[in-house]
Amino acid sequence: MPSDEFLVTPWEVEGNVDYNKLTALFGTQPIDDAILARFKRLTGSIPLMLRRQVFFSHRDLNWILDRYEAGEKFVLYTGRGPSGHTHLGHLMPWIFTKYLQDAFHADLYFQMTDDEKFLQKDELSASATRGFSYDNALDLIALGFDPEKTRIFLDTEYARTLYPIALEVAKRVTFSAARAVFGFDSSTNIGMVFFTSMQSAPAFLPAILSGRNVPVLIPCAIDQDPHFRITRDVAPKMGYYKPALIHSRFFPSLLGLDKMSASIPETSIFTTDSPEEARTKIANAFTGGRTTAQEQRDLGGVPDICAVYQYSFYLFEQDDKRAVELREECLRGARACGECKNELADKVVQFLKHHQAAREQAQDRIEDFIIRDCQE
Amino acid sequence: MPSDEFLVTPWEVEGNVDYNKLTALFGTQPIDDAILARFKRLTGSIPLMLRRQVFFSHRDLNWILDRYEAGEKFVLYTGRGPSGHTHLGHLMPWIFTKYLQDAFHADLYFQMTDDEKFLQKDELSASATRGFSYDNALDLIALGFDPEKTRIFLDTEYARTLYPIALEVAKRVTFSAARAVFGFDSSTNIGMVFFTSMQSAPAFLPAILSGRNVPVLIPCAIDQDPHFRITRDVAPKMGYYKPALIHSRFFPSLLGLDKMSASIPETSIFTTDSPEEARTKIANAFTGGRTTAQEQRDLGGVPDICAVYQYSFYLFEQDDKRAVELREECLRGARACGECKNELADKVVQFLKHHQAAREQAQDRIEDFIIRDCQE
Repeated sequence: MPSDEFLVTPWEVEGNVDYNKLTALFGTQPIDDAILARFKRLTGSIPLMLRRQVFFSHRDLNWILDRYEAGEKFVLYTGRGPSGHTHLGHLMPWIFTKYLQDAFHADLYFQMTDDEKFLQKDELSASATRGFSYDNALDLIALGFDPEKTRIFLDTEYARTLYPIALEVAKRVTFSAARAVFGFDSSTNIGMVFFTSMQSAPAFLPAILSGRNVPVLIPCAIDQDPHFRITRDVAPKMGYYKPALIHSRFFPSLLGLDKMSASIPETSIFTTDSPEEARTKIANAFTGGRTTAQEQRDLGGVPDICAVYQYSFYLFEQDDKRAVELREECLRGARACGECKNELADKVVQFLKHHQAAREQAQDRIEDFIIRDCQE
Repeated sequence: MPSDEFLVTPWEVEGNVDYNKLTALFGTQPIDDAILARFKRLTGSIPLMLRRQVFFSHRDLNWILDRYEAGEKFVLYTGRGPSGHTHLGHLMPWIFTKYLQDAFHADLYFQMTDDEKFLQKDELSASATRGFSYDNALDLIALGFDPEKTRIFLDTEYARTLYPIALEVAKRVTFSAARAVFGFDSSTNIGMVFFTSMQSAPAFLPAILSGRNVPVLIPCAIDQDPHFRITRDVAPKMGYYKPALIHSRFFPSLLGLDKMSASIPETSIFTTDSPEEARTKIANAFTGGRTTAQEQRDLGGVPDICAVYQYSFYLFEQDDKRAVELREECLRGARACGECKNELADKVVQFLKHHQAAREQAQDRIEDFIIRDCQE
């Protein structure tokens, strides 16, 4: 594909993603200063994920904040396709979701789409996607979600609840509509054709369980937007509010690709990586550095294509002033790549140490979070 | 459609169905004298439904009888699309299934496809198809099935169990394969595209629940064969036996159409009809009679197109000799249509009286038969 082209579907991200073009293409709204000011006013601060435009786009965010200000609380819904271990890219939207839960006192429904990943990946068995669901849930819990307000479920273990809701969605979505949104072809299996109904279902769960209309906000990576366009189309026909959305960009790959892929281990730092593994991956990361130290001093680096800088900018450098300084120091040749890599590696290792301890503790608490059919 | 053409899919039967052509078209095997002799030897008799070729076609029936003779019992699986009340046509395969349960001491799984009918029929709500499922179950139970050996379930109430099995099927069925079998077009909703996976699932349930391969025999009307061609295709890939099938023809419409349709009440006698309603419908039935009594005496009637004769032949005249006599008397002009209608009406009313009493009693026993997720 030519370098100025890109493709974004829920199952495939290719090319250099232009987020402005994507917003225009998908017809979503940018997160502008007025929205940032509104978060500041409502929650007392603007989190890093909004300040740094990690979450950069939305649908109906102002509407859901209107409802909130009118005293109508919203419920959060997000999820994960459990096709492997969790990497740092997965944590980015979850950290933001945790902020939303705390700031807005919001309940969270978290869907593990073990059905989707089983259907999508030839090599994954149902027991594998089930296993990854429980593994990934540990990472979510380790981030500190409130067990009183957080419900994690696997589609296959919650099908008695979700399938009847999915049917209400599916009845209103033609094959041609789904094909237009997802680009199915004749080799697509019939489970994948149906699956978007299962991903829509939790958006209606709060309303169905409570017996009244409930605003729902879905934080998700932008590639999930096609599913929720369908959800939003059918919502009024089912008598429910359209869920609002807030979209994140993709976490950069350590190798300089566009989306961190769990299928190439070197592109990602997994939450289960040892300090040594993490350090090695960062040492081998793609940067915006020059070929020689002399060139680096003379020309400066290119932080905007640098995976190491982006890791700092999107996740590990909390201090806005310092984040800007790092960029400027790089641009004027005052930093060597090794320096940035070492600083990032220290932060990542420290994070992993803390996270892995929390993840270990989560083992004993997982049943406080999981909901299934056939248990109350 | 020209009178020599016909169309048979699980959702549509049109034209004059030629059962010989259908057997050739679908690639099924006819039920021949050798099979009848085998039933006689194994069960001591040949039931009316086999003697009169109501069940006329099969797949792998000899294989399943081989397994039976080798000491490996089979499990029965059949079902109903609960889109309305039960009519006599629906009872025909159930009566045969009851014979099979008794003769072969077989467990029966009976699927109410409330999901399918909800997805298929714009006018049916989920609560309507759920309601018809329970209503129809009363008719099944009234036929005398053994509660120790019979499990009735609604897809929506058993989705926790069925959906994961359906996923294993769906992963192995491409959209183009399903379209070729069912004739989907772009306006088909994505639930209907997926549904065949749910109809396949119970064929694997006995094996999954028992942890070993179990032969399954599916008695069904021939229009359901396309679903089970898919089931049989995927079975070996899932490590299970292909289910065997035994196919019935369609019960004739009282108005002379090819399949009794629940959507035109006058074509059918419902199990809930009053004696008066049943008598009126039979009085208005399409027959093979001539325009005048004189013509009838001179030319004889045409029993082979007569709905009244077919009702007797397929269901109400148990005596083979008498069934042949009725036909011959008609052919030589010795019977008037009113005579046949009165005799049939008497038998139908007597049947309904008995059935409705049993149906009433079934109200108290329904929970002995229903299985759902979330109860053991």
